Amino acid sequence: MEPEAEVRTKAERAKRASTQLIGLSTETKNEALLAMANGLEAGCQTILDANRADMDEYSLQNPGSPLLDRLMLNQPRIKAMADGIREVSRLPDPVGEIVDGMRTADGLEISRVRVPLGLVAIIYEARPNVTADAVSLCIKSGNSILLRGGSEAIRSNGAIVNALVESSRHLIPADSIQFVETADRRAVGAMLLARGLIDLLIPRGGSGLIGHVVENAKVPVIETGVGNCHIYVDESAKLEMASDIVYNAKVQRPAICNAAKKLLIHSSVAQTHLPEMAKRLRGAGVVLKGCPRTRALISGVGEATEEDWQTEYLDMRLAVKIVDTLEEAIVHINRYGSKHSEAIVTEDYDRAQRFLRDVDAAAVYVNASTRFTDGFLFGMGAEIGISTQKLHARGPMALRELTTTKYLVRGKGQVRK
Amino acid sequence: MEPEAEVRTKAERAKRASTQLIGLSTETKNEALLAMANGLEAGCQTILDANRADMDEYSLQNPGSPLLDRLMLNQPRIKAMADGIREVSRLPDPVGEIVDGMRTADGLEISRVRVPLGLVAIIYEARPNVTADAVSLCIKSGNSILLRGGSEAIRSNGAIVNALVESSRHLIPADSIQFVETADRRAVGAMLLARGLIDLLIPRGGSGLIGHVVENAKVPVIETGVGNCHIYVDESAKLEMASDIVYNAKVQRPAICNAAKKLLIHSSVAQTHLPEMAKRLRGAGVVLKGCPRTRALISGVGEATEEDWQTEYLDMRLAVKIVDTLEEAIVHINRYGSKHSEAIVTEDYDRAQRFLRDVDAAAVYVNASTRFTDGFLFGMGAEIGISTQKLHARGPMALRELTTTKYLVRGKGQVRK
Repeated sequence: MEPEAEVRTKAERAKRASTQLIGLSTETKNEALLAMANGLEAGCQTILDANRADMDEYSLQNPGSPLLDRLMLNQPRIKAMADGIREVSRLPDPVGEIVDGMRTADGLEISRVRVPLGLVAIIYEARPNVTADAVSLCIKSGNSILLRGGSEAIRSNGAIVNALVESSRHLIPADSIQFVETADRRAVGAMLLARGLIDLLIPRGGSGLIGHVVENAKVPVIETGVGNCHIYVDESAKLEMASDIVYNAKVQRPAICNAAKKLLIHSSVAQTHLPEMAKRLRGAGVVLKGCPRTRALISGVGEATEEDWQTEYLDMRLAVKIVDTLEEAIVHINRYGSKHSEAIVTEDYDRAQRFLRDVDAAAVYVNASTRFTDGFLFGMGAEIGISTQKLHARGPMALRELTTTKYLVRGKGQVRK
Repeated sequence: MEPEAEVRTKAERAKRASTQLIGLSTETKNEALLAMANGLEAGCQTILDANRADMDEYSLQNPGSPLLDRLMLNQPRIKAMADGIREVSRLPDPVGEIVDGMRTADGLEISRVRVPLGLVAIIYEARPNVTADAVSLCIKSGNSILLRGGSEAIRSNGAIVNALVESSRHLIPADSIQFVETADRRAVGAMLLARGLIDLLIPRGGSGLIGHVVENAKVPVIETGVGNCHIYVDESAKLEMASDIVYNAKVQRPAICNAAKKLLIHSSVAQTHLPEMAKRLRGAGVVLKGCPRTRALISGVGEATEEDWQTEYLDMRLAVKIVDTLEEAIVHINRYGSKHSEAIVTEDYDRAQRFLRDVDAAAVYVNASTRFTDGFLFGMGAEIGISTQKLHARGPMALRELTTTKYLVRGKGQVRK
């Protein structure tokens, strides 16, 4: 089958299945999730065989690539996926929640009720665990799902989807979960154009993938996960707290979107704070780049160019800029930031309040590491991505963000005068 | 100035102004709105002169057009606009609302706070009162606004904007309100592409305009207002209630999006109910089209084609289809409806519940006219449009829907373990 026809056929099937998912009870959905978790564990060996084939092919073409670890599955990782699905089964069902409501002067009873979106599509790269996470969140929220993973994990993802579908087909429509099997890139194009079928498309991956999807999609999209995050060390910041936060935000997991990519520091504390912070960061392997004043203060720092300020480093680089005012820091962040997570370190109440108000991002921090932006840590029990856009959902997304609402209006024959 | 440069310059100015609007108190915004209302009334004659010029030019080119009444302003209509702005000043300020929040196990205080979107753009046709409505809702919700009205009302809209800006510039940045002065259509294209400047674009007008915007925009858009609305008369429906609801939904204001455009009726009551309903509708000037069974039952009914089922009539046409089951009605509605407002007339509890659950639309009614879908009647105190999409806002939109949220996270030095 041509890639476009494959996408179209599978999207139509999933869309039809979504009308059946609306009517399922919370209990049935939870049973299906538990069956999927058991099915994953029971199918462990088949999944590992498929993953072995993916790994062999990938390592032949990309020997020693750091991506190999992200692609690799083993028994504990499959167990972790299954446990993740069990966690989702324990979360509250968002569907059916009455968000608000009223009785009008005419006696109409209006309630705004949370309902599934319909068909959610996801385009993602590398890690096969995304497959199980996304399926469980979509099914729990009453949506069908169309998955398109990276070609390097195509056998692993296919085996995972097969285990999920086969173990739950006695409880939910098998068509609810659809996996695009072709590695042909035209499949992505077909997904971007499937207006009227796909109710929400979530791209998960590097900024290249996300930019391509946002630029070209005709279906509704939520931008996720690009994090060009800044820590601003204010003139009142204490050295120890500033150093701890910057170190944690930069070093703990540098390839994650909520890690710090840039450090801004007030000129009045640059001399006292920056040398020690730089030394500690370099001790952990951080490579510093900087503005001219930073380079004059710290030796061996490369020049940070316009491109550096725009780039979401996903490695050990950190670009440093010395600023003269809080306002200069805020303007820089609002210009170059990706509206993900931004932090100030300060002892000054008023400056903390201004930073919280004026920085335009999904999560704005005072005196804490940006690494906390995460659906689990924010109490959602799960995460399907972190929205960096303003419409619909902003910040970590989980079950609630996979729903919409509709107004139900109950009358007794009212007409408008 | 070239149209693209005009749009770019004005969008940049408005975007800069939006950062100042974030910091304004509710009191200042309300004062600015009251000043605008007074300014509109004080500038009445200037606005009427500009409107006269628009009317003269339009009526010369389109003598007798029904659009003339929508374009026409007079003193009472300007008074009504001013009173509308005063109403908005009395509505609660959505900005600053703490939507939810928590303290985490780590002791982080997380609050999700409602904040302005930034720059809202609106592309609209005909009625100049939209100008005042949109400006007041955007300013109240802390957003700057970029307006692009229809060329037929360009002088009227310009005069209204001028009165609003000049009367409020001592309270809010004059750049907050920007009006595209060129009638050149390239201005619309420039707005659609202004990524990073326009945070939300709302098209208001016919389905042609809305379709063009949705297809071509690279900025975030909310689809509004296309209403291919159905009334389904169930087998258990009482004739009198069904007739009253269909008559009201079709006849009261046929050119409005929430008016009924289609009638579906169960075959078991077609013979008893349809002839009388058809007679009453025709008595009010309704032109019936129908499926073959309808045409066999009622004489003089034209054939309803595939195109009829898809079309949002904005006139006195009504297409009628006889169906054999509730399910057939729901499938038809979900296929052809524009996801705006849909109604069932029934005495059966279970069928009412199934219709409410399975029909995919912003507002789903039991035993009431679809004409009630409206921000004022739904208790919002205002309306900037009716969203027919699922993301961000669904149904009538007012102040809350012109905001987003951000997470504020207050710590005391926490880092992630």
